[in-house]
Amino acid sequence: MSKPFRVVQVGLGSIGLPIAKAILNRGNLSLVGTMDANPELIGKKLSQILREDSNTRLTISGVLEEVIGASADVAIIATSSSLKTVKQTIMKALDAGLHVVSICEELSYPYKRHARIAKEIDHAARDVGRSVLGTGINPGYLMDILPILLTAPCLTLEALYVTRCVNSSRRRMSFQKKIGTGMKKKDFSNAISSGVITGHVGLEESICMIDDTLKLGLDNVEELPPKPVIADSEVVTPLATISPGDVLGLRSRAVGKREDTTVVTLDFIAYADADPEYDEVVVEGFPRIQQRIEGGVMGDHGTIAMAINAIPLVVHAHPGLLTMKDLPSPRNTQFYFRG
Amino acid sequence: MSKPFRVVQVGLGSIGLPIAKAILNRGNLSLVGTMDANPELIGKKLSQILREDSNTRLTISGVLEEVIGASADVAIIATSSSLKTVKQTIMKALDAGLHVVSICEELSYPYKRHARIAKEIDHAARDVGRSVLGTGINPGYLMDILPILLTAPCLTLEALYVTRCVNSSRRRMSFQKKIGTGMKKKDFSNAISSGVITGHVGLEESICMIDDTLKLGLDNVEELPPKPVIADSEVVTPLATISPGDVLGLRSRAVGKREDTTVVTLDFIAYADADPEYDEVVVEGFPRIQQRIEGGVMGDHGTIAMAINAIPLVVHAHPGLLTMKDLPSPRNTQFYFRG
Repeated sequence: MSKPFRVVQVGLGSIGLPIAKAILNRGNLSLVGTMDANPELIGKKLSQILREDSNTRLTISGVLEEVIGASADVAIIATSSSLKTVKQTIMKALDAGLHVVSICEELSYPYKRHARIAKEIDHAARDVGRSVLGTGINPGYLMDILPILLTAPCLTLEALYVTRCVNSSRRRMSFQKKIGTGMKKKDFSNAISSGVITGHVGLEESICMIDDTLKLGLDNVEELPPKPVIADSEVVTPLATISPGDVLGLRSRAVGKREDTTVVTLDFIAYADADPEYDEVVVEGFPRIQQRIEGGVMGDHGTIAMAINAIPLVVHAHPGLLTMKDLPSPRNTQFYFRG
Repeated sequence: MSKPFRVVQVGLGSIGLPIAKAILNRGNLSLVGTMDANPELIGKKLSQILREDSNTRLTISGVLEEVIGASADVAIIATSSSLKTVKQTIMKALDAGLHVVSICEELSYPYKRHARIAKEIDHAARDVGRSVLGTGINPGYLMDILPILLTAPCLTLEALYVTRCVNSSRRRMSFQKKIGTGMKKKDFSNAISSGVITGHVGLEESICMIDDTLKLGLDNVEELPPKPVIADSEVVTPLATISPGDVLGLRSRAVGKREDTTVVTLDFIAYADADPEYDEVVVEGFPRIQQRIEGGVMGDHGTIAMAINAIPLVVHAHPGLLTMKDLPSPRNTQFYFRG
């Protein structure tokens, strides 16, 4: 009776590998294939890469067609933030008859930045009667679906403020580097100008999803250049010891305006030793709602959970390209089975 | 192009009347009829009862059939917490071709306490291609849909704790009386035994909705008898001055268990001068989520907003009896129009 959902994991990087592990640890999911383009992984036993006891006998493939032929229900794609890069993989998975869940940030709400690709994916998915979803903790939850839900008890809605404050010292080294930790102020400015530091991918997608869902009629959505957070005393971080005057991390802001009035403001703040960590939503309206997740949601774990919790909802959704706003309220689905 | 949703308001009591007012104040809703059984209201101008300038020329009817014939889209029913009492009104509204939104607490998740009535309403709604929804702030949001959504970033889910703490001195007088404010301790005990004080209606419904949505497999859902909150010094309340040793209000608890392990705990706490007010959700799992709405959500405003925000979602839903878990994530819909 209790059949698990059969899942293929495409991409075994810093998020993809723990997704594979989370699938193996869930009673209602069965990992039936894994694939990565990295030559150092291809041909290796997954259990060896996971560096722990696990029952899987899977070997990591380097050929997508090989794993998506494995009579799976769903492919989870964790390869890139860029929809252009991920598109081909989505199309191949659909061709093989799989539903798709991806943590590609640009897929979370692709209708503005990549309208043409969104249409292509939607058509391809409908043609084969399968669904495609982009999700994650942010975009996909903390800065879009959660604030959307928090407007429900409001008679009137004037403005939305969402703040995510992250202590980067508790995150992956690659994340700490990405936000400029340890840089000289001038190098940070140059890195912003040259696009080496981009801030957080997905703020624009979150605002567009909010706009579309609440029908705010925004006429301008803008990501402002990230600003550095400067150390005022020495800070020891896992990456380096930061001297006073140097960069601890950054603040990214995106705003959505209607007739020059700011209606939606998203602040993504990440720096070494940020304390407290939190995720906050303020709905200016009546009644006013001020909400906080104390300690915040650890981003990687949250994204992994959002992806695997989405599987049963995506399998049962109507065909086509979906965003989080099109599905029933997201939830933990560890007790859902395939039938 | 921008047509409003046409709404009939059935019941003009302590929540129904402000719902009528909220409908009049919303650009996307049009109030086309009002009805109440109270002889003191029947035949009066609504604007006179609202005691404020408003453009409505509606007269309050005492005959349901009269108002639901008014080519409306939706009837909002705010007459009783008891589904047995509300059922007939729902059936008549469906017969007249209207969708139904009700704040009847027992309708929010009727499948356990009133399984037979739930089935009858569902059949009747499907027969005429209309939808029926029970909603409100609690049940309907704070203790069910919101905690359900907060489990989405969790890889594993062990237990849910939801606490609503309300300063009753800021609420309606009828609410202050209902929770025993000013009673002697002994009178409170008697009022509990005799069922005069019942605690909060809807805790069981919220647990059953959570259980059904998260597939927790609970085998026991229980509302415990409310306990008094006792004053330890004199407290001046809008209702009375409370002496030390007397009752300020109450604590209601409901629990959902699986094999004798408590998985869901809902605490509804309401007493004079409770400070701070808050709505809190703790998801024990990995990652752990600790969330708070500072100051809480003012209950009456929240329930009014939940009801009118549901209108566009209910009109576009599939036919039948719905609960909040069956609809897309709830949201403010003041900018939604009928077409």
